[in-house]
Amino acid sequence: MKLAGIEAGGTKFIIVIGDDQGKVLARSQIPTTTTTETMTQVIDFLKKHEFSALGVACFGPIDPNPHSPTYGYITSTPKTSWRHYDIVGTLTRALPPVPVFFDTDVNGAALGEYYWGNGKNINNFIYLTVGTGIGGGVMIDGKLLHGTMHPELGHILIPQDLINDPFPGICPYHGNCLEGLASGPAIKSRWDVESALDLHASHPAWDFEADYLAKAMTNYILCFSPERIILGGGVMQQQQLLPLIQAKTKQLLAGYIENQTITSIEKTIVLAALGQEAGNMGALALARLALTTTL
Amino acid sequence: MKLAGIEAGGTKFIIVIGDDQGKVLARSQIPTTTTTETMTQVIDFLKKHEFSALGVACFGPIDPNPHSPTYGYITSTPKTSWRHYDIVGTLTRALPPVPVFFDTDVNGAALGEYYWGNGKNINNFIYLTVGTGIGGGVMIDGKLLHGTMHPELGHILIPQDLINDPFPGICPYHGNCLEGLASGPAIKSRWDVESALDLHASHPAWDFEADYLAKAMTNYILCFSPERIILGGGVMQQQQLLPLIQAKTKQLLAGYIENQTITSIEKTIVLAALGQEAGNMGALALARLALTTTL
Repeated sequence: MKLAGIEAGGTKFIIVIGDDQGKVLARSQIPTTTTTETMTQVIDFLKKHEFSALGVACFGPIDPNPHSPTYGYITSTPKTSWRHYDIVGTLTRALPPVPVFFDTDVNGAALGEYYWGNGKNINNFIYLTVGTGIGGGVMIDGKLLHGTMHPELGHILIPQDLINDPFPGICPYHGNCLEGLASGPAIKSRWDVESALDLHASHPAWDFEADYLAKAMTNYILCFSPERIILGGGVMQQQQLLPLIQAKTKQLLAGYIENQTITSIEKTIVLAALGQEAGNMGALALARLALTTTL
Repeated sequence: MKLAGIEAGGTKFIIVIGDDQGKVLARSQIPTTTTTETMTQVIDFLKKHEFSALGVACFGPIDPNPHSPTYGYITSTPKTSWRHYDIVGTLTRALPPVPVFFDTDVNGAALGEYYWGNGKNINNFIYLTVGTGIGGGVMIDGKLLHGTMHPELGHILIPQDLINDPFPGICPYHGNCLEGLASGPAIKSRWDVESALDLHASHPAWDFEADYLAKAMTNYILCFSPERIILGGGVMQQQQLLPLIQAKTKQLLAGYIENQTITSIEKTIVLAALGQEAGNMGALALARLALTTTL
């Protein structure tokens, strides 16, 4: 059985045809320009293939609530052409009738880790990507959390020591929210470098980064009581970060929570398995979910 | 059909016999001293009544995971006699065999609001009590969130302006976590008064309080995407607080989230309906849930 997945990203769309074990059989990459230009190419590619379900893992914010009048829309994105755009409607009108599952890119990535990665057999976990932006997907009792819309884990507020660290953050909405302090562009801006990769592993930047992320881990653990937190995204490819985050999180929780999530922090906070493929594997995972979901 | 509920609190136990509409038919109050002394009286009272299910809404941290070897225990409480105490085992061994549901006092209160209060017909909401401590229960798709244990919403970390507000907080674990800054005892300590009630409605204390709580609201909205947040507990009886919290939360979210949760913030952040009865009604609600739950 073949599945189709669309990773709808802010700079490019990746479309894959694959099977329900996550094996990719065909693939296309299309730049994100205007809705008409990009979507015409997406639809052309998909029309050349047969598939039983479609997953759309989309940059946000989106409306994934099937009971909402704007279900299937990209909502308040700063990208003008895509603002309030009915991406699911456009696809379903153009393509043969197959089940579709539409969700955030990070919920997709979380589901990919659940089926084929480090979330396998773990029914309560958080997936967080730390890269150009920060965002997360949450699995609760084996189901993706939506609430009225979807979580926006990257924008939570965390304490910042403004005396020793007066960086105002770069989030256009919240300044020094987590994404404003700890995303890749925030690191670049904070330390005035071309790329976060230019900073040596011993640079103080990574201590700040681990501190911000450990505060976020602490809040996620207190809010969701997860079994695991899976960290992906470009920034997490810095090998020195994970152990720093683990140690600081344990320190911040200060023994308040006694269960094994905290006593074995090295098993709780781990890296993602799907790496660079998180996006398109996530889209494929959403297609697999579409087959078993009645909206 | 009669139900029994135990509100197990840090200073007193309240035991109620009631029906599945939340009507209380009999009631007893017992001081929380040692496990033997308190539990003997609890069991004596319950033995005098007939009931079809028992709910236990308990101070925490507790282990409510039925698959855990320490299910039914109070775990790491500072109250020595109750530390690692098998409260559910003690009750089930002494009482006739009826279904039991064991959960945190705040999950109980959340369920009470869901059945009989301001959470009626709302499948995604957060209940937060702000009093001697701060704690919360989370309803997701009509089910109480547990994860590996239960949320500890009161201990999340929030930004604090240490230059204008150098209060170190009073949480013995985390210092200036939410509970350390915004609980009733924190207000007393911060402003050096006998009771938070001594502070006039125009006292700056309430601006600080609303600021702390609005930061927490912001993080809960970003984490859970809830339809509603229901605020209970003694501190929330200060009428001036709610509108301040609503306004500051909207300001902190800064237009990032466009759905109706935020556009109609007055409908989203509301006061609890059950008030002082939240605890024992919560225990009764857990008994009602026990009737329909297979552990």
